[in-house]
Amino acid sequence: MPLNPDAKLPSEWSDWHERSWSSKDALLYSLGVGAGATDPTGFELEFTTENSDGIQQLALPTMPVVIAPSGGPSAGRNPMDRIGTFDYAMLVHGEQSVTLHQPVPVEGTATMKGRVAAMYDKGKAAVVVLQNEAVDASGAPLWTNTMSAFIRGEGGWGGDRGPSGPRNVPPDRDPDHVVSYATRTDQALVYRLNGDRNPLHSDPKFAARAGFPKPILHGLCTYGFTGRALLHAVCGSDPTRFKAIEGRFSHPVMPGDTLDVKIWVDGNEAIFQTWAGENMVIDSGKLTFA
Amino acid sequence: MPLNPDAKLPSEWSDWHERSWSSKDALLYSLGVGAGATDPTGFELEFTTENSDGIQQLALPTMPVVIAPSGGPSAGRNPMDRIGTFDYAMLVHGEQSVTLHQPVPVEGTATMKGRVAAMYDKGKAAVVVLQNEAVDASGAPLWTNTMSAFIRGEGGWGGDRGPSGPRNVPPDRDPDHVVSYATRTDQALVYRLNGDRNPLHSDPKFAARAGFPKPILHGLCTYGFTGRALLHAVCGSDPTRFKAIEGRFSHPVMPGDTLDVKIWVDGNEAIFQTWAGENMVIDSGKLTFA
Repeated sequence: MPLNPDAKLPSEWSDWHERSWSSKDALLYSLGVGAGATDPTGFELEFTTENSDGIQQLALPTMPVVIAPSGGPSAGRNPMDRIGTFDYAMLVHGEQSVTLHQPVPVEGTATMKGRVAAMYDKGKAAVVVLQNEAVDASGAPLWTNTMSAFIRGEGGWGGDRGPSGPRNVPPDRDPDHVVSYATRTDQALVYRLNGDRNPLHSDPKFAARAGFPKPILHGLCTYGFTGRALLHAVCGSDPTRFKAIEGRFSHPVMPGDTLDVKIWVDGNEAIFQTWAGENMVIDSGKLTFA
Repeated sequence: MPLNPDAKLPSEWSDWHERSWSSKDALLYSLGVGAGATDPTGFELEFTTENSDGIQQLALPTMPVVIAPSGGPSAGRNPMDRIGTFDYAMLVHGEQSVTLHQPVPVEGTATMKGRVAAMYDKGKAAVVVLQNEAVDASGAPLWTNTMSAFIRGEGGWGGDRGPSGPRNVPPDRDPDHVVSYATRTDQALVYRLNGDRNPLHSDPKFAARAGFPKPILHGLCTYGFTGRALLHAVCGSDPTRFKAIEGRFSHPVMPGDTLDVKIWVDGNEAIFQTWAGENMVIDSGKLTFA
């Protein structure tokens, strides 16, 4: 039961469905991506507390990836169902973008829908691009997420290979900022409480069967650390200035690794790469900011 | 409006009230008291994950202190109301005991009641002892907690000073076990998500007004680290063997401190002390185990 290369794309949108989150969820997300621990500017109290003197709680701008995981199909029809079937064990996260139409509320309800925006044939794999749109209670847009799923063992139908080659290539000079954050050996154990309980990130036996020496960090956890680095280095720690982020997962990260986020600023854009030691773990990164 | 030394004690029990907790709450409590990070035996997956291969999730035996804080009055009448009024800012946690009548379920509902068991006059302070009883859905006892609140500025009515002097004094020999756990600089930020949002543990400005150089760790977080140490060192990591714990908070702990739990075993009891560097932070400690 493979993917259906003749599926009409973009697919129809899923039904609208709601998802709510609390102030506590926002605090837990912030702690899951390292806020409060490693930032030399302090404990990031606006992201890690709700009752500090003179400080208003804020949500980190990458939080939509846990509010609307994988296009947000959990409460509605899975948009993936429109394009055939495949073995979910063969899926890895390829790319992720988040475009914010307004800052993420600390607590609230999003009404959202998802669809399959595109499907590409990489020969021995397929890439499926999921899109998520969310609006607030007034109908005003909250965010647009896209994620691409890289599915080994699919593809080969002779279809469009899709975009390839380097994107968001940094200029030939030293980065303008390098932000280093240590992840903790138990980072994934905290991060997973945001919702992604895949045992690849916590169970050594499961990770070994998947070919890893130990459980690997959630790609979206690395993504959240990277978003924090960009927020503090480029946006003056102000989430209202953080407009859109995109990047591609290029190498696994182990809990305990130190992440170095290299940032090249050009006008109201910043090209970035995230490194763990000698490995580039997020490439093709771009932030748009105000 | 001081404490009323003529209050009948023990007070009447509060109304019964219910409190529920989830598997996620149990995971968050475990992470809040350091499980998964510092234990040399691994990631304590039975306490930090619910889906690891061949491992059943368990709750840490000290978890009742967050399910039933301060006698558990939040959903019922506060037993403190029976004994007059005082300034809560003058209250510090004195002693805490947890007696388990069965292992703490990973998720469930407890029906509980609280009362003031005793009140002592320390001259320039008063000590109020709160007791909490919890039963499960079948009516079977779950736990009995007591905590004593040390209230500066109360007392002086010429009443019973209550028990004093050293208790649970260790024998004159080296401890049988010393378990060392590092706390993290952001430990209180995770622990507070279990419910105690007192800004003394997170807001530097609030902590400064209370006379501390920086926010201090929750005493009950230190208590949870200590319970983990006892569980692993004395109970073979088996919560069914952990029957009762008591101890007295004797010094503040700063997030980032390393805790050394010194344990002297005698039959089915263990005397313990918890140290942070040169300071004994929990004294008069005793574990009863099977």
